[in-house]
Order: sequence, then structure tokens, then C-alpha cells
Amino acid sequence: MKVLVLNCGSSSIKYKLLDMESNLELGSGAVEKIGMKGSFLKHTRADGVKVMLKGEILEHQIGIEYILGILTSEKHGCIKSLEEIGGVGHRVVHGAEKFNTSVLITDEVIQKLVECIDIAPLHNPPNLAGIRAISELLPTMPQVGVFDTAFHQTMPDYAYMYGIPYTLYSKYGIRRYGFHGTSHRYVSKRAAEFLGLDYHNSRIITAHIGNGVSVTAIENGKSVDTSMGFTPIEGPMMGTRSGDVDLGVVTFLMEKEMIGASAVSTLFNKHSGMLGVSGVSSDMRDIEKAVKEGNDRARLARHMYVYRLRKYIGAFAAAMGGVDAIVFTGGIGENHVFTRKYICEGLGFMGVKIDCDLNAASQGIAVKLSTEDSQVYVAVIPTDEEFMIASDTIEILKNRN
Amino acid sequence: MKVLVLNCGSSSIKYKLLDMESNLELGSGAVEKIGMKGSFLKHTRADGVKVMLKGEILEHQIGIEYILGILTSEKHGCIKSLEEIGGVGHRVVHGAEKFNTSVLITDEVIQKLVECIDIAPLHNPPNLAGIRAISELLPTMPQVGVFDTAFHQTMPDYAYMYGIPYTLYSKYGIRRYGFHGTSHRYVSKRAAEFLGLDYHNSRIITAHIGNGVSVTAIENGKSVDTSMGFTPIEGPMMGTRSGDVDLGVVTFLMEKEMIGASAVSTLFNKHSGMLGVSGVSSDMRDIEKAVKEGNDRARLARHMYVYRLRKYIGAFAAAMGGVDAIVFTGGIGENHVFTRKYICEGLGFMGVKIDCDLNAASQGIAVKLSTEDSQVYVAVIPTDEEFMIASDTIEILKNRN
Repeated sequence: MKVLVLNCGSSSIKYKLLDMESNLELGSGAVEKIGMKGSFLKHTRADGVKVMLKGEILEHQIGIEYILGILTSEKHGCIKSLEEIGGVGHRVVHGAEKFNTSVLITDEVIQKLVECIDIAPLHNPPNLAGIRAISELLPTMPQVGVFDTAFHQTMPDYAYMYGIPYTLYSKYGIRRYGFHGTSHRYVSKRAAEFLGLDYHNSRIITAHIGNGVSVTAIENGKSVDTSMGFTPIEGPMMGTRSGDVDLGVVTFLMEKEMIGASAVSTLFNKHSGMLGVSGVSSDMRDIEKAVKEGNDRARLARHMYVYRLRKYIGAFAAAMGGVDAIVFTGGIGENHVFTRKYICEGLGFMGVKIDCDLNAASQGIAVKLSTEDSQVYVAVIPTDEEFMIASDTIEILKNRN
Repeated sequence: MKVLVLNCGSSSIKYKLLDMESNLELGSGAVEKIGMKGSFLKHTRADGVKVMLKGEILEHQIGIEYILGILTSEKHGCIKSLEEIGGVGHRVVHGAEKFNTSVLITDEVIQKLVECIDIAPLHNPPNLAGIRAISELLPTMPQVGVFDTAFHQTMPDYAYMYGIPYTLYSKYGIRRYGFHGTSHRYVSKRAAEFLGLDYHNSRIITAHIGNGVSVTAIENGKSVDTSMGFTPIEGPMMGTRSGDVDLGVVTFLMEKEMIGASAVSTLFNKHSGMLGVSGVSSDMRDIEKAVKEGNDRARLARHMYVYRLRKYIGAFAAAMGGVDAIVFTGGIGENHVFTRKYICEGLGFMGVKIDCDLNAASQGIAVKLSTEDSQVYVAVIPTDEEFMIASDTIEILKNRN
């Protein structure tokens, strides 16, 4: 079966068409700048043929029409007819406490997603727009929602609650939800297979390190704690997001700079992290270059980035009373030699030992980095959220009747 | 020499008169409700004689007059004349980056303290009021300032900086300062002596667990990281303070509840923590009682409290690449058997092993809890900030000329 995976953001739609029988990607791409000047679609077919279409893409439904059009185009497409697509899988950011697993989209599910908007005002509306567009354009197409938060719904209350008045949880649902769940679920399962661990009898820490960064503690196949919280800003430092900051800073800044809640939120989400500290870039490759050129703020940003990650891994090992495997994934986790080296060298006291030459030689591939005498496995597993979304979609469609 | 130690808060002054030659406490007490209805002084003399004086104590200087009066009172006092006092040591909350050690109070120092008010608007003004009152009442008395933040000034930049735009550090001094420094310094030194460790060649984690809670990583006698940050709200959960919370919660709440920065700050500082989660109390003794009675929110609050502490200790072990000794102090750290047990049992994976019977039997005393085969020392060291302030005062007065 072929599955179309959609990831709808506020002004972009990423897509991938996967043939799950042959395990092949048929085509992928993105619509960018929806509703803005200069919107376009860029598409890459499995054979490497690339195309870019400019157009006035005012809303998500038009964006999806572009995608369906290019997928079936005679010249650049990869399928003859939309009937070849067996289902559409949507990445949905926030399922709150309503969804602890992927689900077939029904009217009732849509209603629940609408109720989640309150808690995820930036993320869920475009996800919903994508779902509605498919319903409109392909009324009989089965759709599945795969939630970033679902995997973390197994956290115990003492891990997901904040130290704030309990009524704020009852009234508004303020608690840790966690994100990147599809990635943490995928790489932890894959790591267990890859390392020969029993997934249901193991303690794994997965570090998804990219532009967004999150660390998850997975005990016996279940997420028991994660660094992202009520929103995706909590945790180690990220590309443009601050990660953890003393709450007093927020109110201090609002008063000093005379700015409101939304301005301070933009400051911490878009202008902070590695970008804000270094003043150079949110991209680790640029930071590395600047470090080599002797830029001291780039040195500081990189050190903070890896130091805070190492602390989180130590904290989660303590949370589970130990760890059997540490797994790196995400753009930086899969490729950045220094990040993995810095983290693992500092964890020697808990029996972590990696092969530094192997680490230095490994980029973008699944690899076991720990030495034979390491007490903890260390591995890199490239993440594949689209594959996970497509598999969930197939699984749910199979069990539909 | 006799030293008067003063700890001036916004509406209270705690004091202790210490004879540092004989290592004896001569008298101690507090003025409460300064500037409010029903203000009073309560005083305890070394022989157990207690007295309470009610009066209209409108400001700090009057409060200090009460204290000096009771210390020299024929009936309840403990010295014949104020001339017996060789120096006054003040606890000062915030020394920002201006003070990395205790100092003799001079006009220049007072000027610098005034400059720190901006960053510690609640704490430094009463500290300054106490200093000025002594200058007024005892013009020739030497005074020493001992800072909560000074011990943490050795932190490296990657530990004290936040992942926010660097200009906010340059412009406002927004960074991690840390607090409870006098306590962390005292107990870490005492623990090294007590355990026979070389203070200048050791990695110690001190957990000051009371109504305020902070954890510090001390490497070779220097604070290298600490849980409290720009303000004393960051870190594990506390009695009424939230500790770490996703920044997104702050802005979400301000918008939902339509409250401003100062209301949200009060909410997180005064109505959160164990009190806010349990709805019972900020006092661990009340929480324990409620847990025994089957109160589920008290169970949750207690579990969050100890769980978050354990994670911090794991994080700081990772920060230092290992730990030689874990030290508990503060009201709960010195007395609460369950907290110490929960934390240590979860740290077995890093070689921590304690004698549970000894732990259960030990309250309020210095004791080594780790077993002979533990790879990490675990100890309880009762804190004594007043002693540390008095010692610093003597040390500085000795070296004055």
C-alpha cells in the first residue's frame, strides 16, 4: 500500500509518498510560504528528478492540491492516479490527554482536535486544515492522525506534573506533555532491535538532537519522562529556543523591556538558543565554523548546548535508576561527532565507554558506538518519523474492520 | 571575639550572637512583622530563658534597637555592653558579579549593593537597611557582608549562562547566580573534613533541602553549577516555590488568567511547590501526615519533590563526570528519612549505597550514611550559615590591617 504522509505547519506543508510494501520512498517535498508572497512547491522524485513550481498558494487546501497534482503529473509524478494512495497519515502536534495512540480520523476525532487548539494554538490549526483539505479533495480517503505527544502519555503523574497549584492542571490541563514522541518511539524500538535488547525489559534514553532538542527516558518500552513540557520550549538548549530558564527571567524581562506575553514568548522561541547566545547562527555547522575561527560566543553556545544535554541524560539515568542504552538521533545527533563525544566522555562514571574513532567516522548511519566493555550501550539511529506515521496508518487501516 | 549575625528580610530580622572563641551561641531570636500590626521580638538566651517583647516596630532600625536592647538587658541579656561585640556580620542575598567573597562594609561596598538592587529588588533593600541601621546606632562597629551568591561566582560561563540572547546578559546581567552559597560552602567543607576527603581534590554534590531547595556541584572546592538561577525559584520543587516549569506556562497563564508579571511571580513563588500541588501545606511534616492518611495529592507532591531532587543529583554527577560525595543538609535534608532513602536508592547505578537502618535512625546530626562498599560517600551535615557568617567576619577583621 502507498501512504501519503503530511506534516502541515502554519505556512508550510511537508509531504512524503511511501510505498510500504517495497519500503520505498516514491517522492517527497514541501509547499512553502503558504499565504505569503513567493509561495512555491518543491518536489523530488525517487529517481532524483527535482522540480519547483511557483504559484499563489493562499491556503493549505490549495497547497495540498499542488501536492496531489505533482504526485500524479505525467512529467514529474510518481503515481498514475490518486487511487493508488491507500491512506493519508498526518503528523499532529498536540493530542493533549485525549490521544495516547494514533487514530483513524473521524468527525469525533476532529471535534477532539478542535478542543486541543486551546493548548496548541500555533500547531493544531494547520494540522486540522490539512485534514479538512484531504476530506474535501478526496472524500473517501481514509486518514490517520499520529500525535507528537501520544507516546509520552505513559508518563507517571510525578513526572508530568509541575510544582504549581493543582487547580491549574484541572482547569487548563497545564502539565508536561512532551513532543517528538513519534521519533522517540521509532528510534527506541529500532535501537532495541539493533542492539539485541528486549524492548519491554530495558531502560533506554533517546536524545533527539536537531534544531529542536528533546531527551526521553523509556522504561520497558514506555516513555516515563521527557524534557519537553507543556510546550516544546522546555529542556536542553535548542537552535533558536532557549530551553530551561529561571521563571524569574520571564517576569523580570517583561517589566524591564515593557513587553507583553507574546513578545517574550517570541524572544525565547525564535531568537534564543544557539542563535541567541552565539549571535552567529542556529545551525551547528555555522557554529562549528565560527568556533574554529576563534569566535568565543560560538564556543560558549556550543559548550552550553552539549553540557545541558549531558546533564539531562544524567538526570534521566537517575530517574530510571540506571540506563541500558543511550541513543542519539536527529540532525545533530546523527551527524555531529563532537556532541556525542562530549556527552559520552562525561558519562564514564556510569560505565559509558565509546569507540572514539568509530564515533569520528560515523555520520548519518545506524551504528553501535559503545565498546565491548561499556556497561551501557550507545548507538546512533537515524530517525524516520514519516516511516513511523506511514506504518501507523497501515496498521490502523488494516485493523479498521 | 563576639560576633552579631544579622539576617534582615523585608519584614523580619533574624539574629544570633556568637562567641567565636568558645564556639558558643549566647543568644538568638528574631524581630517579626516589621512595619505591620502586631510586630514583636522573640529572644532566646543560651540558658534557655525566652522572652517576647511586643512593640511598634515600624522599620528595621527600630528592630535593631530592640535587638541591641535585649542583648544588653540586665534581666534577659547575654552581654553587659555592646562594646563586647567585635563585629557584625550580615547575610546579604545578592552580590551579583560584584562580590565573589565576603567583604568589609565600606561606602564603596554600600554603593555597589545599591547597584545590585535592580537585580534583587525584594532582598537587597532590607539587607541595606540593616547595614545602615548599625552604622547609625554603632558608628564605629566594623561590619562584614556575606553573600548568598558569592560562593557560586566560580561557575564556568557554560554553566551560568542561559540560552537567551547574549545582549540580555550584557545589558541586565541576566544569568545564573545561585543562592544558599554560604550553606553549600559550609557543608561541603565540613563534609570533606568529616569524610576525610581532600576538599581541593574532590567532587561533592550538596543538597540543601528545606523550605528553599538547592543543589550544588562542587569540584575541587569550587561551585561549578547550582540549581537556583537568576532568582531563587529555579531548581527542584520547594515548599511554596514551583522550581522548574516550562516557560510557555508563564505566558499561557498570563493570557488565560489576564494577570500581570507580578501576579504570576507571586503565584509561582508563594502558592506553588508542595503547598500548591498538595493543597495541604508547604511543610513536609504535614505532607507526611496527609500521605499516611491516604491523601493522593500529598502523595503526588512528596513524590515530585524527591523525584526532582534525584534528577538534579544525577544531572550534576554527569556535569562533573562523577561524584565522590553526596551531602544532605537543611531542615528536610537533615531530618527526613524518606527523602534521603528515595534519592539514594535510585542512585545505586552510580555506586551509591547507604545503610538504611542508620538512615532511618539519623535526624539532625552529622552522619556518614554510605556503606563501606559504596563507591560514593553519602553524608548528612547540619548546616550553620550563622557560624559561617561569623567566621568570615572574624577572618576579615583579623586581616583588616
